[in-house]
Amino acid sequence: MSKVLLEHIRKFISLTPVLTLQIPGYFERLEVGKKEILLPANHLCDHLFFVERGCIHAFFVDQRGVEKSIQFALENWWISDYQAFYKKKVTDATIQTVEDSVVWSISREKYTALLKDHPEMESYFRQMYEIGYGAVITRLKYLFNYSKEEIFYNFSEQFPYFVQRVPQYILATYLGLTPEYLSKLRAKRRS
Amino acid sequence: MSKVLLEHIRKFISLTPVLTLQIPGYFERLEVGKKEILLPANHLCDHLFFVERGCIHAFFVDQRGVEKSIQFALENWWISDYQAFYKKKVTDATIQTVEDSVVWSISREKYTALLKDHPEMESYFRQMYEIGYGAVITRLKYLFNYSKEEIFYNFSEQFPYFVQRVPQYILATYLGLTPEYLSKLRAKRRS
Repeated sequence: MSKVLLEHIRKFISLTPVLTLQIPGYFERLEVGKKEILLPANHLCDHLFFVERGCIHAFFVDQRGVEKSIQFALENWWISDYQAFYKKKVTDATIQTVEDSVVWSISREKYTALLKDHPEMESYFRQMYEIGYGAVITRLKYLFNYSKEEIFYNFSEQFPYFVQRVPQYILATYLGLTPEYLSKLRAKRRS
Repeated sequence: MSKVLLEHIRKFISLTPVLTLQIPGYFERLEVGKKEILLPANHLCDHLFFVERGCIHAFFVDQRGVEKSIQFALENWWISDYQAFYKKKVTDATIQTVEDSVVWSISREKYTALLKDHPEMESYFRQMYEIGYGAVITRLKYLFNYSKEEIFYNFSEQFPYFVQRVPQYILATYLGLTPEYLSKLRAKRRS
Protein backbone atom coordinates (compact mmCIF):
# COMPACT_ATOMS: atom_id res chain seq x y z
CA MET A 1 0.00 0.00 0.00
CA SER A 2 2.82 2.37 0.83
CA LYS A 3 4.76 1.53 -2.34
CA VAL A 4 4.44 4.97 -3.92
CA LEU A 5 5.83 6.80 -0.89
CA LEU A 6 8.66 4.28 -0.43
CA GLU A 7 9.56 4.41 -4.13
CA HIS A 8 9.70 8.17 -3.89
CA ILE A 9 11.99 8.10 -0.86
CA ARG A 10 14.20 5.53 -2.60
CA LYS A 11 14.88 8.03 -5.39
CA PHE A 12 16.65 10.30 -2.90
CA ILE A 13 18.25 8.07 -0.28
CA SER A 14 19.17 4.39 -0.07
CA LEU A 15 16.39 2.57 1.72
CA THR A 16 17.53 -0.16 4.07
CA PRO A 17 15.17 -3.11 4.74
CA VAL A 18 14.64 -1.74 8.28
CA LEU A 19 13.57 1.66 6.96
CA THR A 20 11.32 0.06 4.33
CA LEU A 21 9.56 -1.88 7.05
CA GLN A 22 9.31 0.88 9.60
CA ILE A 23 8.57 4.07 7.61
CA PRO A 24 4.89 3.34 6.92
CA GLY A 25 4.24 3.13 10.68
CA TYR A 26 4.92 6.85 11.05
CA PHE A 27 2.28 7.80 8.50
CA GLU A 28 -1.45 7.65 8.21
CA ARG A 29 -2.93 6.78 4.82
CA LEU A 30 -6.00 8.79 3.91
CA GLU A 31 -8.41 8.19 1.07
CA VAL A 32 -10.26 11.43 0.63
CA GLY A 33 -12.86 12.71 -1.77
CA LYS A 34 -12.72 15.87 -3.86
CA LYS A 35 -12.80 19.22 -2.04
CA GLU A 36 -12.22 17.70 1.40
CA ILE A 37 -10.32 19.78 3.92
CA LEU A 38 -7.20 18.11 5.33
CA LEU A 39 -6.18 21.05 7.50
CA PRO A 40 -8.48 24.01 8.19
CA ALA A 41 -7.28 27.61 8.46
CA ASN A 42 -6.85 29.06 11.95
CA HIS A 43 -5.69 25.73 13.34
CA LEU A 44 -2.27 24.61 14.50
CA CYS A 45 -0.36 23.37 11.46
CA ASP A 46 0.84 20.00 12.73
CA HIS A 47 0.90 17.76 9.67
CA LEU A 48 2.79 17.31 6.41
CA PHE A 49 1.01 15.62 3.50
CA PHE A 50 2.43 13.50 0.69
CA VAL A 51 0.24 12.92 -2.38
CA GLU A 52 0.16 9.32 -3.61
CA ARG A 53 -2.68 10.00 -6.01
CA GLY A 54 -4.77 13.08 -6.76
CA CYS A 55 -4.19 16.76 -6.22
CA ILE A 56 -4.13 19.03 -3.18
CA HIS A 57 -3.82 22.77 -2.86
CA ALA A 58 -3.26 25.25 -0.05
CA PHE A 59 -5.21 28.47 -0.23
CA PHE A 60 -5.78 31.50 1.94
CA VAL A 61 -8.65 33.98 1.88
CA ASP A 62 -7.42 37.44 0.93
CA GLN A 63 -8.56 40.79 2.28
CA ARG A 64 -11.44 40.90 -0.19
CA GLY A 65 -12.65 37.43 0.76
CA VAL A 66 -11.25 35.78 -2.39
CA GLU A 67 -9.69 32.30 -2.08
CA LYS A 68 -6.13 32.31 -3.42
CA SER A 69 -4.17 29.15 -4.12
CA ILE A 70 -0.63 29.55 -2.88
CA GLN A 71 0.66 26.00 -3.34
CA PHE A 72 -0.17 22.83 -5.24
CA ALA A 73 0.81 19.21 -4.88
CA LEU A 74 0.24 16.54 -7.49
CA GLU A 75 1.47 12.91 -7.21
CA ASN A 76 4.80 12.48 -5.43
CA TRP A 77 4.86 15.89 -3.87
CA TRP A 78 4.57 17.26 -0.37
CA ILE A 79 2.37 20.05 0.89
CA SER A 80 1.84 21.94 4.14
CA ASP A 81 2.20 25.45 5.53
CA TYR A 82 5.90 24.87 6.18
CA GLN A 83 6.45 28.08 8.09
CA ALA A 84 3.58 27.41 10.49
CA PHE A 85 4.67 23.76 10.76
CA TYR A 86 8.27 24.66 11.62
CA LYS A 87 7.28 27.42 14.04
CA LYS A 88 4.47 25.33 15.60
CA LYS A 89 1.98 28.05 14.80
CA VAL A 90 -1.59 28.46 13.66
CA THR A 91 -1.84 28.57 9.87
CA ASP A 92 -3.95 30.98 7.83
CA ALA A 93 -3.97 28.46 4.97
CA THR A 94 -6.55 25.78 4.27
CA ILE A 95 -5.20 22.55 2.82
CA GLN A 96 -7.84 20.95 0.63
CA THR A 97 -8.07 18.21 -1.98
CA VAL A 98 -8.79 19.33 -5.53
CA GLU A 99 -9.54 15.79 -6.75
CA ASP A 100 -10.24 12.44 -5.07
CA SER A 101 -6.88 11.74 -3.48
CA VAL A 102 -4.77 9.21 -1.62
CA VAL A 103 -2.58 10.99 0.88
CA TRP A 104 0.13 10.01 3.36
CA SER A 105 -0.15 12.26 6.39
CA ILE A 106 2.51 12.61 9.08
CA SER A 107 1.99 14.49 12.34
CA ARG A 108 4.72 16.74 13.78
CA GLU A 109 5.13 14.27 16.63
CA LYS A 110 5.69 11.37 14.24
CA TYR A 111 7.90 13.49 11.94
CA THR A 112 10.12 14.39 14.89
CA ALA A 113 10.24 10.74 15.95
CA LEU A 114 10.99 9.58 12.40
CA LEU A 115 13.96 11.95 12.10
CA LYS A 116 15.20 10.95 15.54
CA ASP A 117 14.80 7.19 15.05
CA HIS A 118 16.02 7.19 11.44
CA PRO A 119 18.40 10.10 10.84
CA GLU A 120 18.86 8.88 7.25
CA MET A 121 15.50 10.52 6.61
CA GLU A 122 17.05 13.96 7.27
CA SER A 123 18.67 13.72 3.85
CA TYR A 124 15.36 12.91 2.17
CA PHE A 125 13.61 15.92 3.70
CA ARG A 126 16.67 18.14 3.16
CA GLN A 127 16.37 17.37 -0.55
CA MET A 128 12.58 17.85 -0.58
CA TYR A 129 12.94 21.33 0.93
CA GLU A 130 16.01 22.21 -1.14
CA ILE A 131 14.02 21.47 -4.32
CA GLY A 132 10.86 23.18 -3.05
CA TYR A 133 12.75 26.27 -1.87
CA GLY A 134 14.48 26.63 -5.25
CA ALA A 135 11.21 26.14 -7.14
CA VAL A 136 9.29 28.78 -5.22
CA ILE A 137 12.09 31.36 -5.70
CA THR A 138 11.91 30.62 -9.43
CA ARG A 139 8.13 31.16 -9.30
CA LEU A 140 8.71 34.50 -7.59
CA LYS A 141 11.17 35.44 -10.33
CA TYR A 142 8.51 34.72 -12.93
CA LEU A 143 6.04 36.97 -11.12
CA PHE A 144 8.64 39.76 -11.06
CA ASN A 145 9.80 39.36 -14.64
CA TYR A 146 6.80 38.60 -16.79
CA SER A 147 3.47 40.15 -17.61
CA LYS A 148 0.39 38.24 -16.49
CA GLU A 149 -0.12 37.04 -20.03
CA GLU A 150 3.46 35.78 -20.33
CA ILE A 151 3.19 34.02 -16.96
CA PHE A 152 0.22 32.03 -18.22
CA TYR A 153 1.86 31.10 -21.54
CA ASN A 154 5.17 30.13 -19.93
CA PHE A 155 3.41 28.06 -17.32
CA SER A 156 1.22 26.32 -19.93
CA GLU A 157 4.30 25.39 -21.93
CA GLN A 158 6.22 24.07 -18.96
CA PHE A 159 3.37 22.26 -17.21
CA PRO A 160 0.71 21.41 -19.82
CA TYR A 161 -0.68 18.46 -17.80
CA PHE A 162 -1.14 20.75 -14.82
CA VAL A 163 -3.08 23.33 -16.81
CA GLN A 164 -5.34 20.57 -18.22
CA ARG A 165 -5.97 19.03 -14.86
CA VAL A 166 -6.48 21.84 -12.38
CA PRO A 167 -9.77 23.77 -12.33
CA GLN A 168 -9.44 27.15 -13.96
CA TYR A 169 -10.51 29.25 -10.96
CA ILE A 170 -7.79 27.63 -8.84
CA LEU A 171 -5.10 27.89 -11.52
CA ALA A 172 -5.90 31.57 -12.02
CA THR A 173 -5.23 32.63 -8.41
CA TYR A 174 -2.12 30.40 -8.30
CA LEU A 175 -0.71 32.42 -11.21
CA GLY A 176 -1.75 35.74 -9.69
CA LEU A 177 -4.56 36.27 -12.25
CA THR A 178 -8.31 36.63 -11.92
CA PRO A 179 -10.41 33.72 -13.28
CA GLU A 180 -11.99 36.14 -15.79
CA TYR A 181 -8.59 37.20 -17.13
CA LEU A 182 -7.41 33.59 -17.41
CA SER A 183 -10.59 32.72 -19.28
CA LYS A 184 -9.87 35.50 -21.78
CA LEU A 185 -6.28 34.29 -22.29
CA ARG A 186 -7.47 30.74 -22.92
CA ALA A 187 -10.08 31.89 -25.43
CA LYS A 188 -7.43 34.00 -27.19
CA ARG A 189 -5.15 30.99 -27.37
CA ARG A 190 -7.78 28.76 -28.90
CA SER A 191 -8.72 31.30 -31.54
CA MET B 1 37.62 32.88 12.98
CA SER B 2 34.79 30.51 12.13
CA LYS B 3 32.98 31.13 15.43
CA VAL B 4 29.94 32.79 13.86
CA LEU B 5 29.25 29.92 11.48
CA LEU B 6 29.82 27.29 14.19
CA GLU B 7 27.60 29.15 16.66
CA HIS B 8 24.89 29.26 14.05
CA ILE B 9 25.12 25.54 13.35
CA ARG B 10 25.05 24.85 17.10
CA LYS B 11 21.63 26.50 17.33
CA PHE B 12 20.18 23.75 15.13
CA ILE B 13 22.16 20.58 15.84
CA SER B 14 24.46 19.41 18.62
CA LEU B 15 28.02 20.03 17.55
CA THR B 16 30.46 17.32 18.54
CA PRO B 17 34.12 18.28 19.10
CA VAL B 18 35.00 16.41 15.88
CA LEU B 19 32.47 18.43 13.86
CA THR B 20 33.63 21.68 15.47
CA LEU B 21 37.19 20.93 14.42
CA GLN B 22 36.44 19.69 10.95
CA ILE B 23 33.63 21.87 9.61
CA PRO B 24 35.76 24.95 8.87
CA GLY B 25 37.92 22.85 6.52
CA TYR B 26 35.04 22.47 4.09
CA PHE B 27 34.58 26.23 3.74
CA GLU B 28 36.48 29.13 2.31
CA ARG B 29 36.36 32.40 4.23
CA LEU B 30 36.09 35.47 2.01
CA GLU B 31 36.50 39.09 3.00
CA VAL B 32 34.89 41.06 0.23
CA GLY B 33 34.25 44.71 -0.42
CA LYS B 34 30.94 46.34 -1.29
CA LYS B 35 29.35 45.49 -4.65
CA GLU B 36 31.69 42.61 -5.36
CA ILE B 37 30.34 39.71 -7.36
CA LEU B 38 30.57 36.33 -5.66
CA LEU B 39 28.89 34.41 -8.46
CA PRO B 40 28.22 35.92 -11.88
CA ALA B 41 25.11 35.22 -13.96
CA ASN B 42 25.39 32.67 -16.79
CA HIS B 43 27.82 30.55 -14.81
CA LEU B 44 27.40 27.16 -13.20
CA CYS B 45 25.94 27.72 -9.74
CA ASP B 46 28.34 25.63 -7.66
CA HIS B 47 28.56 27.46 -4.32
CA LEU B 48 26.45 28.23 -1.27
CA PHE B 49 27.29 31.34 0.78
CA PHE B 50 26.85 31.99 4.50
CA VAL B 51 27.03 35.62 5.68
CA GLU B 52 29.14 36.14 8.81
CA ARG B 53 29.04 39.91 8.46
CA GLY B 54 27.55 42.25 5.88
CA CYS B 55 24.81 41.83 3.33
CA ILE B 56 24.49 39.95 0.06
CA HIS B 57 21.75 39.88 -2.53
CA ALA B 58 20.91 37.82 -5.60
CA PHE B 59 19.50 39.69 -8.56
CA PHE B 60 18.57 38.93 -12.13
CA VAL B 61 18.22 41.31 -15.05
CA ASP B 62 14.65 41.40 -16.30
CA GLN B 63 13.42 41.66 -19.89
CA ARG B 64 13.69 45.45 -19.79
CA GLY B 65 17.27 45.36 -18.53
CA VAL B 66 16.34 46.29 -14.95
CA GLU B 67 18.21 44.59 -12.08
CA LYS B 68 15.74 42.90 -9.71
CA SER B 69 16.72 41.62 -6.28
CA ILE B 70 15.14 38.26 -5.69
CA GLN B 71 16.86 37.26 -2.42
CA PHE B 72 18.74 38.85 0.45
CA ALA B 73 21.03 37.52 3.13
CA LEU B 74 22.12 39.43 6.21
CA GLU B 75 24.24 37.99 9.04
CA ASN B 76 23.63 34.32 9.82
CA TRP B 77 21.82 33.56 6.63
CA TRP B 78 22.53 31.54 3.51
CA ILE B 79 22.20 32.56 -0.10
CA SER B 80 22.55 30.93 -3.51
CA ASP B 81 20.45 30.08 -6.53
CA TYR B 82 19.24 26.89 -4.85
CA GLN B 83 17.47 25.51 -7.90
CA ALA B 84 20.53 25.91 -10.13
CA PHE B 85 22.73 24.57 -7.32
CA TYR B 86 20.61 21.45 -6.82
CA LYS B 87 20.19 20.81 -10.55
CA LYS B 88 23.87 21.58 -11.30
CA LYS B 89 22.81 24.21 -13.80
CA VAL B 90 23.85 27.62 -15.01
CA THR B 91 22.22 30.40 -12.99
CA ASP B 92 20.64 33.55 -14.38
CA ALA B 93 21.20 35.25 -11.02
CA THR B 94 24.17 37.34 -9.95
CA ILE B 95 25.18 37.01 -6.31
CA GLN B 96 26.73 40.25 -5.14
CA THR B 97 27.68 41.92 -1.86
CA VAL B 98 25.64 44.98 -0.87
CA GLU B 99 28.07 45.97 1.90
CA ASP B 100 31.61 45.01 2.88
CA SER B 101 31.09 41.42 3.93
CA VAL B 102 32.66 38.37 5.51
CA VAL B 103 31.35 35.26 3.83
CA TRP B 104 31.79 31.51 4.26
CA SER B 105 31.64 29.88 0.85
CA ILE B 106 31.22 26.15 0.23
CA SER B 107 31.57 24.51 -3.17
CA ARG B 108 29.17 21.79 -4.29
CA GLU B 109 32.01 19.30 -4.11
CA LYS B 110 32.76 20.22 -0.49
CA TYR B 111 29.05 20.39 0.39
CA THR B 112 28.56 16.85 -0.93
CA ALA B 113 31.65 15.69 0.97
CA LEU B 114 30.51 17.43 4.17
CA LEU B 115 27.10 15.71 4.06
CA LYS B 116 28.74 12.36 3.29
CA ASP B 117 31.47 12.62 5.95
CA HIS B 118 29.21 14.18 8.60
CA PRO B 119 25.57 13.14 8.04
CA GLU B 120 24.62 15.12 11.18
CA MET B 121 24.88 18.17 8.92
CA GLU B 122 21.89 16.93 6.90
CA SER B 123 19.68 18.04 9.78
CA TYR B 124 21.23 21.52 9.82
CA PHE B 125 20.64 22.06 6.11
CA ARG B 126 17.20 20.41 6.30
CA GLN B 127 16.24 23.07 8.84
CA MET B 128 17.84 25.90 6.83
CA TYR B 129 15.81 24.97 3.76
CA GLU B 130 12.65 24.22 5.75
CA ILE B 131 12.80 27.75 7.18
CA GLY B 132 13.75 29.37 3.87
CA TYR B 133 11.06 27.51 1.95
CA GLY B 134 8.40 28.57 4.44
CA ALA B 135 9.58 32.19 4.42
CA VAL B 136 9.51 32.56 0.65
CA ILE B 137 5.98 31.11 0.44
CA THR B 138 4.93 33.68 3.03
CA ARG B 139 6.56 36.40 0.90
CA LEU B 140 4.60 35.16 -2.11
CA LYS B 141 1.41 35.31 -0.04
CA TYR B 142 2.13 38.96 0.77
CA LEU B 143 2.60 39.74 -2.92
CA PHE B 144 -0.76 38.08 -3.68
CA ASN B 145 -2.66 39.64 -0.80
CA TYR B 146 -1.53 43.20 -0.38
CA SER B 147 -1.28 46.33 -2.45
CA LYS B 148 2.22 47.63 -3.20
CA GLU B 149 1.76 50.28 -0.54
CA GLU B 150 0.69 47.75 2.09
CA ILE B 151 3.62 45.49 1.20
CA PHE B 152 6.05 48.31 1.95
CA TYR B 153 4.39 49.25 5.25
CA ASN B 154 4.08 45.65 6.43
CA PHE B 155 7.68 44.96 5.54
CA SER B 156 8.90 48.15 7.26
CA GLU B 157 7.10 47.17 10.43
CA GLN B 158 8.39 43.62 10.46
CA PHE B 159 11.97 44.33 9.40
CA PRO B 160 12.81 47.95 10.30
CA TYR B 161 16.58 47.30 10.50
CA PHE B 162 16.48 45.85 7.01
CA VAL B 163 14.73 48.88 5.54
CA GLN B 164 17.27 51.19 7.19
CA ARG B 165 20.22 49.20 6.01
CA VAL B 166 19.54 48.18 2.44
CA PRO B 167 19.88 50.74 -0.38
CA GLN B 168 16.53 51.95 -1.58
CA TYR B 169 16.91 50.91 -5.24
CA ILE B 170 17.61 47.33 -4.14
CA LEU B 171 14.83 47.22 -1.54
CA ALA B 172 12.34 48.50 -4.13
CA THR B 173 12.83 45.67 -6.61
CA TYR B 174 12.88 43.11 -3.78
CA LEU B 175 9.38 44.27 -2.81
CA GLY B 176 8.19 44.32 -6.42
CA LEU B 177 8.12 48.15 -6.54
CA THR B 178 9.95 50.69 -8.67
CA PRO B 179 12.54 52.84 -6.87
CA GLU B 180 10.46 55.94 -7.75
CA TYR B 181 7.34 54.47 -6.17
CA LEU B 182 9.22 53.44 -3.03
CA SER B 183 10.68 56.93 -2.78
CA LYS B 184 7.14 58.39 -2.87
CA LEU B 185 5.95 56.00 -0.15
CA ARG B 186 8.88 56.93 2.08
CA ALA B 187 8.26 60.64 1.61
CA LYS B 188 4.55 60.12 2.38
CA ARG B 189 5.49 58.26 5.54
CA ARG B 190 7.80 60.99 6.78
CA SER B 191 5.23 63.70 6.17
